Order: sequence, then structure tokens, then C-alpha cells
Amino acid sequence: MMGDDSSIVQAARVSYGKGTKTVSEDRNLIRYLMRHRHTSPFEMVEYKFHIKLPIFVARQWIRHRTANVNEYSGRYSVMPDEFYLPSPEGVRKQSRTNKQGRSDEPINIETANEFIEDLQKTQNLLYEKYNWYLSNEIARELARINLPLSTYTEWYWKIDLHNLFHFLELRLHSTAQFEIREYAKIIAQIVKETCPIAYEAFEDYRLNAITFSSLEQKILKNMIQYKLPTYEEMLEMGLTKREIEEFFEKISLINNH
Amino acid sequence: MMGDDSSIVQAARVSYGKGTKTVSEDRNLIRYLMRHRHTSPFEMVEYKFHIKLPIFVARQWIRHRTANVNEYSGRYSVMPDEFYLPSPEGVRKQSRTNKQGRSDEPINIETANEFIEDLQKTQNLLYEKYNWYLSNEIARELARINLPLSTYTEWYWKIDLHNLFHFLELRLHSTAQFEIREYAKIIAQIVKETCPIAYEAFEDYRLNAITFSSLEQKILKNMIQYKLPTYEEMLEMGLTKREIEEFFEKISLINNH
Amino acid sequence: MMGDDSSIVQAARVSYGKGTKTVSEDRNLIRYLMRHRHTSPFEMVEYKFHIKLPIFVARQWIRHRTANVNEYSGRYSVMPDEFYLPSPEGVRKQSRTNKQGRSDEPINIETANEFIEDLQKTQNLLYEKYNWYLSNEIARELARINLPLSTYTEWYWKIDLHNLFHFLELRLHSTAQFEIREYAKIIAQIVKETCPIAYEAFEDYRLNAITFSSLEQKILKNMIQYKLPTYEEMLEMGLTKREIEEFFEKISLINNH
Amino acid sequence: MMGDDSSIVQAARVSYGKGTKTVSEDRNLIRYLMRHRHTSPFEMVEYKFHIKLPIFVARQWIRHRTANVNEYSGRYSVMPDEFYLPSPEGVRKQSRTNKQGRSDEPINIETANEFIEDLQKTQNLLYEKYNWYLSNEIARELARINLPLSTYTEWYWKIDLHNLFHFLELRLHSTAQFEIREYAKIIAQIVKETCPIAYEAFEDYRLNAITFSSLEQKILKNMIQYKLPTYEEMLEMGLTKREIEEFFEKISLINNH
Repeated sequence: MMGDDSSIVQAARVSYGKGTKTVSEDRNLIRYLMRHRHTSPFEMVEYKFHIKLPIFVARQWIRHRTANVNEYSGRYSVMPDEFYLPSPEGVRKQSRTNKQGRSDEPINIETANEFIEDLQKTQNLLYEKYNWYLSNEIARELARINLPLSTYTEWYWKIDLHNLFHFLELRLHSTAQFEIREYAKIIAQIVKETCPIAYEAFEDYRLNAITFSSLEQKILKNMIQYKLPTYEEMLEMGLTKREIEEFFEKISLINNH
Repeated sequence: MMGDDSSIVQAARVSYGKGTKTVSEDRNLIRYLMRHRHTSPFEMVEYKFHIKLPIFVARQWIRHRTANVNEYSGRYSVMPDEFYLPSPEGVRKQSRTNKQGRSDEPINIETANEFIEDLQKTQNLLYEKYNWYLSNEIARELARINLPLSTYTEWYWKIDLHNLFHFLELRLHSTAQFEIREYAKIIAQIVKETCPIAYEAFEDYRLNAITFSSLEQKILKNMIQYKLPTYEEMLEMGLTKREIEEFFEKISLINNH
Repeated sequence: MMGDDSSIVQAARVSYGKGTKTVSEDRNLIRYLMRHRHTSPFEMVEYKFHIKLPIFVARQWIRHRTANVNEYSGRYSVMPDEFYLPSPEGVRKQSRTNKQGRSDEPINIETANEFIEDLQKTQNLLYEKYNWYLSNEIARELARINLPLSTYTEWYWKIDLHNLFHFLELRLHSTAQFEIREYAKIIAQIVKETCPIAYEAFEDYRLNAITFSSLEQKILKNMIQYKLPTYEEMLEMGLTKREIEEFFEKISLINNH
Repeated sequence: MMGDDSSIVQAARVSYGKGTKTVSEDRNLIRYLMRHRHTSPFEMVEYKFHIKLPIFVARQWIRHRTANVNEYSGRYSVMPDEFYLPSPEGVRKQSRTNKQGRSDEPINIETANEFIEDLQKTQNLLYEKYNWYLSNEIARELARINLPLSTYTEWYWKIDLHNLFHFLELRLHSTAQFEIREYAKIIAQIVKETCPIAYEAFEDYRLNAITFSSLEQKILKNMIQYKLPTYEEMLEMGLTKREIEEFFEKISLINNH
């Protein structure tokens, strides 16, 4: 990787002026940038990953266009004999509420095991056929076309932190497919360790934020009672002065809706 | 422009399945896409604008990278004798709260007029000098370097609707510079007329939405009373069944915070 | 689509000045832009295609990042029972010279037919299994993971002409996989019919151009004899005055190497 | 910066297979990638620069969209009193042949000096006025609008090597404005020192390459005599076996034109 929390601060300070530079001010600056979607300073940190992943995951992943990719090529090289299999607990029914995903409802264990066994048997069969096509001198780019979407590929993937946060926001989400979410979790952990302040701000202001639409604010307006904590209590909770002001602005926006 | 509300629906239906296609379903689909940040269908609409704008505005505008631009060139052509001047009411003091902008506080009218007069006088002087440099056969690319940032340029600017919404979100914002906001307002009006459903969704779910951070939700939690409207009242307010469910999920997320 | 040859001219004239506007001048301007890689005016034309294609082709295609895509989703919808099969003449041996491609050498017809038959039998088997998984209520996103790369998907694909030319340059090339080349040919035909001047310039200055490296120019230097056509002959061949000048510059660069 | 020549090789090998890895093979691989426009491995190297530059140069620079930028903001901070002035030898007449640039023809020394003096005097005047506006409490974002295009700004600029080569190809070119070319030269020197093999390949196959159009090849065809060096002589000149084959293909393409 290139850069860390301090590179974000450095880039922001070229725009927003120098000022004093205590650690707490750096933290506040990064949180301010995240909160107000000043995204360009986060682009100054760059990550590169070497990833092995099933093709059906790769097809979701590659939709993130602002990144650099070099993938293993089944035209140049023989695809290795490696395929993804879900765990028995991972085999779920189609969700009823979420059209795109699997439900939380476990499928009965016999069906799950039968499914996994059949996947594996099929993968072995397809790889045998692949080998048989290759041994008949059929070009690699054609021999591979019946390999399954569960085949593993690998790539180098390089992306800046702003675009990585966008990737994480979408791929850590509960509606993302379980398999890509597992990768997103590991990447999130890496970012958390290497850019801890930026990652914390990302969690607070984006990942765990809740957004209310225009209409919802009309409802919220009548639900809000003035049981406000005191200014001191808010400071204690971790809000900065600036954030307290911003909070009051939001509440007054809702009240005036 | 290319496409309209129906192109967004068409693109979404290729991903999310066909189903019936009444007008109200189209509207719900577009609103669902906007609410859940399924942004790619909005990329299927494309706008092209021919814009005349001062260089200091062009410098902010060009930061939106996902767009196509062809600008008037001061190397090929003589810059025209056109410069931006603010109106007297537009001349404001530096904001105390917003480091980057002007305040709502008007400056006294004499200073404002004096400022505008001096800007104009200076612009005339600079253009005279420019002409004098050119008449001395100095290359256009050099003769122009002392022209002011208030000089007008022009360009063709082409962008898809998703990226245009991002432009509008930033440039309609109260912290954007007044001069670029005026352009954003006109573009917003054009989008409103040509993609009315998408624009309305943009207003409801992005432009006028309010986002609460993790910490703010802790405060909100204690402020929320169960003075909820009934399900029927919510439907009457314009929320769909799906939105009502989503609203309850948000409230319960806050309550469990 | 949005725009055509005239939009390229319109965009270029905003940069390079107005001048007279005869048809032949428009043609010369477009050819000049192409020759000198002034690419931005070509971005002012936008195409949108609705394409059905096998997943292994989609995976190559999606690598062109500067485009907008909405693809059929195997998470939302059941994948249809459609798979790609090569024609018997399309089944070729692995190329010896081109590591990534198939050779011109045909494989014997029995092997080819046997291969195609086996592909088809396997595709049927895999689709049966897919149906069986679905009927066991396994989530669509999991049931599909053993579908083969030859499964058809579909998408809307939107791209500007400059990036489309880049796509065509790579995908019309003899080293591109046969299957994507067939798509590229059809798209090329559409561009040729809708932006004929730009397409002709693309063919002359990019698709059929030959580039000599520094070292190669050293060899070429000694191979060039001054059997030059006359100026008039060159005009007759279709070169403009400007191109003739540029040709002499290239020859003199080689001679002075 | 992140990465170097070896990162390009590493990324390419994930696509094109492992093989042996001697230094000469790495060089050949990088040159092969450059020659055949396999651009993605070059994206795996990332550079970040801190640059001070006049606004008229910044306006050309920013047109390279695939890069990350954080610029000094005249809304947040007072612009410093620093302006670009050309050297007397840099002051040139408008070019007659190149509509966009300055000619090689020097202007007489008196005019040049008078021009520079007047630029400087004007810059001082404009900065005085700027200060006067600020002291009248006029908002920074407005006070600056008559500052000249020669005002210095600064930014962090981050870009991958593939896009940097594209920047260098355009900005090292003789038709680029002198002032941006000077920056390009320094950046080229930095790239040469840090990715020497990639830079050499860029020079040989792109910067110093010559491209012949379809029509030009018709002329060249009759000018080419078979005074070919022997295979051994070509090897000695530095061409690899592969390049010699490619050279013969090009010559035969021209002969069959």
C-alpha cells in the first residue's frame, strides 16, 4: 500500500490550509472530510491486493470500475483444478423479501449436503472434460468454455481508499452475496489496521449511518421529543463541538419540515 | 440528450426481471433504485450542454472527472472580451462559520459598488494589455497568461445522469460557491423537466435527505417517542408499503443502538 | 445513439475556432483529429447497445471500464437455458506462435464434432442440475455457481465513440478471441454506417496504421529509396496537403535517425 | 511511489503465466507489453507528486482525468503572491504553421523585455488589488476572481504509470505548450530513474515511434528496397527474435498493400 491516515491529512491541508497539527486535530479533520463527503483526500491512499476468488464473485467485483486489475488468463494458461464449494450452513433458501439474495432460513441438512456433493461431483466431471479437450489439442480459450462459474481465478487489484470505501459500503451490506461479503470483511479488517482513523470515520458516518428521506422526516418530526442530552453529555459521548452544531441543524431541519 | 425516465426503467428491468410495467410501477422502481443507490441504471441517460462560464467556475466544474469536455482554447483562438461581474447583492463578506464561503451578511453598498467598479476597470485594463501583447505578435498562449480568472470560456460538457446527480448534489449545496450554484440550479431545472420521476426521487432521497451518524443515533434514540402515524396515514403521505417497512427498520435500528 | 460525425466537428470547433464549414473541411478536420489523437471530440458521440453474449465473452468485454453497463442478474432472475456452441470450423488447435489464441490450423472434423457434441451434452446436464437445485429451493445466487462460462447473459452497454474505437482496435485485432471479434465486427459495421467519416479515419489512421519503433527506423532508414511519387500524384492518392507535409517529416525523421 | 519495473512483471505474469524469470526476460516481457499495448500491468505502479504550477498550466494538466488531485483552494486560503513570468528567450511569436503554439522565431529582445516587465507590473497591481479587496472584508472566493492565470497554485497529483505515460506522450510533444513541457521533462526524468526498463520501452515504442497511415504505406511500398540487414546484424542492433519477426510482418504488410 501507499500512504495512510497521514496522507489524507496532508492532502486535505493543501486545500484547506495548514493550521496546527496535533493528533486530535488530524482525527477531527479526517472525520470532518468523511462526514461532508470531501472524498478526494481519501484517494491519496492506494492499496494493492493479490486475490484468489471464484469467477461468480469476480464478476460482481469487476463492476467497480475505478480500479486496476490484472487477472489470470484462461487463454494463456491452463485453469487450475480449484473450485468453490459452500459450507453446509451457507446453503440457504431463496429469500422471500429480498429478491436477489438467500434467506436466513437454513435448508434442511440433507438437501444441503446433497447439493454440495453434487456440486463437487460436477466440478470434477467438468475438469476431467476440460483435460480431455486439452489433450485433444483444442485451443485453451475454447476448451474452458464449459468450466463452471465456481472455478477459481486470481488477480492483482489496485484501488484508492475512497473507491475502496465505496466497494466496502456495497459489499459489506447485508444484501451483498455472502461470498463477496466474506472478502469485503477481510479487506475491511486490513483497512482498519492500516488507516484506523479513516476506517472509524467510515464506520460512523457511512457504514452505520441512517438516512431519512424527505417523507420520513415528516413522520420523524412528530416523534421527536426534546429529551436532549446536555452539551456536556454530548461532548462526553464523543461528538465534537462542530458535530453538536451539525446535529442541532439536522433536528431543526426536521422540525421545520 | 439521450434517454429519459423510461431508459432507467428499461436498464433496471434487464437486471431485476421483467414483471408488469404500469406507470406507477415504473415510478416505484426508479424510487427504489435511487433509495438503494443502485446507480448504474441512471447512467443510461446522457446529457450534453453547451455552457459559457467564467474560468474560476470552470476550474471547480472540471473536478467532476466522469464527463466529456471540449473547451474553447486560448492557444488556438483569441479570448473574447467577456468577463464575469457579481451583482451588488452578490458581494458578501467572508463567512465566519464556513471557512470556504461568503456569509449571508451583506457588505455595505458603497464598498460593493466600489468593488464591482474596480473589477470592471481592471478587466478592461487587462483586456487592453492582452490586445497590445497580441498586436506585438506575442504568441496567444503567452499573451493570455495575465487574463483574470473572471474571463469567460465556453465548452461542451457531456455527462450521464448518475454523475450529473452527483454534480448537482455537490453544486446545489449551500456551501458551493454562489456562481456555480446558479448554473447547477438551471441544470437541475432541465433535468426536472426531462426526467421528472428520477429528479423527484433524487430530491426526496438524496438532496433533501438527512443522515444521522452512529453517535447521533444514540441521542436520537432517547428523543423518539412512539407518536407514530398509522399505516394508512403513512400510505396517504405518499410512502409505499416498502418504504413504510424500511422506515420501521430504521427506527428499530435506532432503538436498538 | 446520440450525435454523429457533425457532433465531433461541432465539439472540435469550440476548441479550434470556427472558420468555414464545407463538407470537405469537416472531413479533413475529423481526419486531422484522429491522426493527431485529439480524442475528446470523439467522446461527444454516445452509443447504447443491447447485447446477448456468453459469459466468457462478457468477462473480456467488461474490462473496458469507461462504459456504462446493466447486466441480467442471476441473483434476481433464473438464468435462461441458452449456451454458446462453436461451429465445427471454429474449433481450432492451440496456436503455437500466439500463446493466447487458437491457430489457423483446423482440427480434424471428427474431434471437432465430438467436442461440440460433448459441450452440448454437458450444457444440458448442467442446466438440468440447475433446475433441480432451484426446485429444491436453493437460492438462485448459489444454484447457478456450476453453470458454465458458455451460458448466455445480456446487458445494456453504453459508451462514447472514442472509447468504442479503443474497444474496436483491441477486439477487431487478430489476437482477440474469435467470439468477441465477431461482436466487434458487427459493432464496427454499425459505427461505419452512423459515423462514416470518423470510422474511415479510424481505419486509415489507427486500425490499418503501422508503427515503427526506434530500432526499426534504423533498419528502415537504409531500405528507403527516393522513389517518391510527385506532389500531384500524392494529392490524387487522397492525401491532403497537410498529410503530405507530415509524410515528408516522417521520412526525414527516419533519414536523420 | 508504489511499485517499480518488477511490479509490472509481477502483474503480467499473473495473466501470462509464470515461466523463468531472468532479468533479460523481465526486460523482454516489459518491452513486449509496451509494444503490444497491454497496458494494464503498467497501471500497477503508482506515483504521487507535490507540484507548484501556474493556473494556466494547471488547466491543461487537469484534463487528464484518470488521476487523483488535491489542490490549494482560493476559497479557504489567501492566494500567495507568486506569479509565473517567462524568460526572455521563452517569449516567442505566434507560430504560422501550428495554430495553437508559439513559433521558434524569437521576438526582438526589446519587445520581449517590455512584455515581461509589463506582465510583472500587472501582476503586482493585481495582487495589490486582491489585498485591498480582502482588507475590505470581501469574501476570498470573490476577491480572487481578477487574479491572473499566471498565479501559482499547488496540488498533490497521484496517477498510475500507464496514465502517466499517456500524460507524458501528450505533454512532451513539440506541440504542447512550452511551460507544461518543462514539467513533463522533469517527471519523465523521475520515471526514467525509478522504472528504467518501462521508460526505455516507452521511449522506443511510443515516444520515438513513427506511425504510417494506410495511404502513406502505399507510398512507402514503392520506396522500400531490399537492403535488409542480416538476422545477425539485427540481433546486434538490439532487436529480439520476436521483434525481428514482427518487423518482417510489417514490411510484408506494406509490400502487400
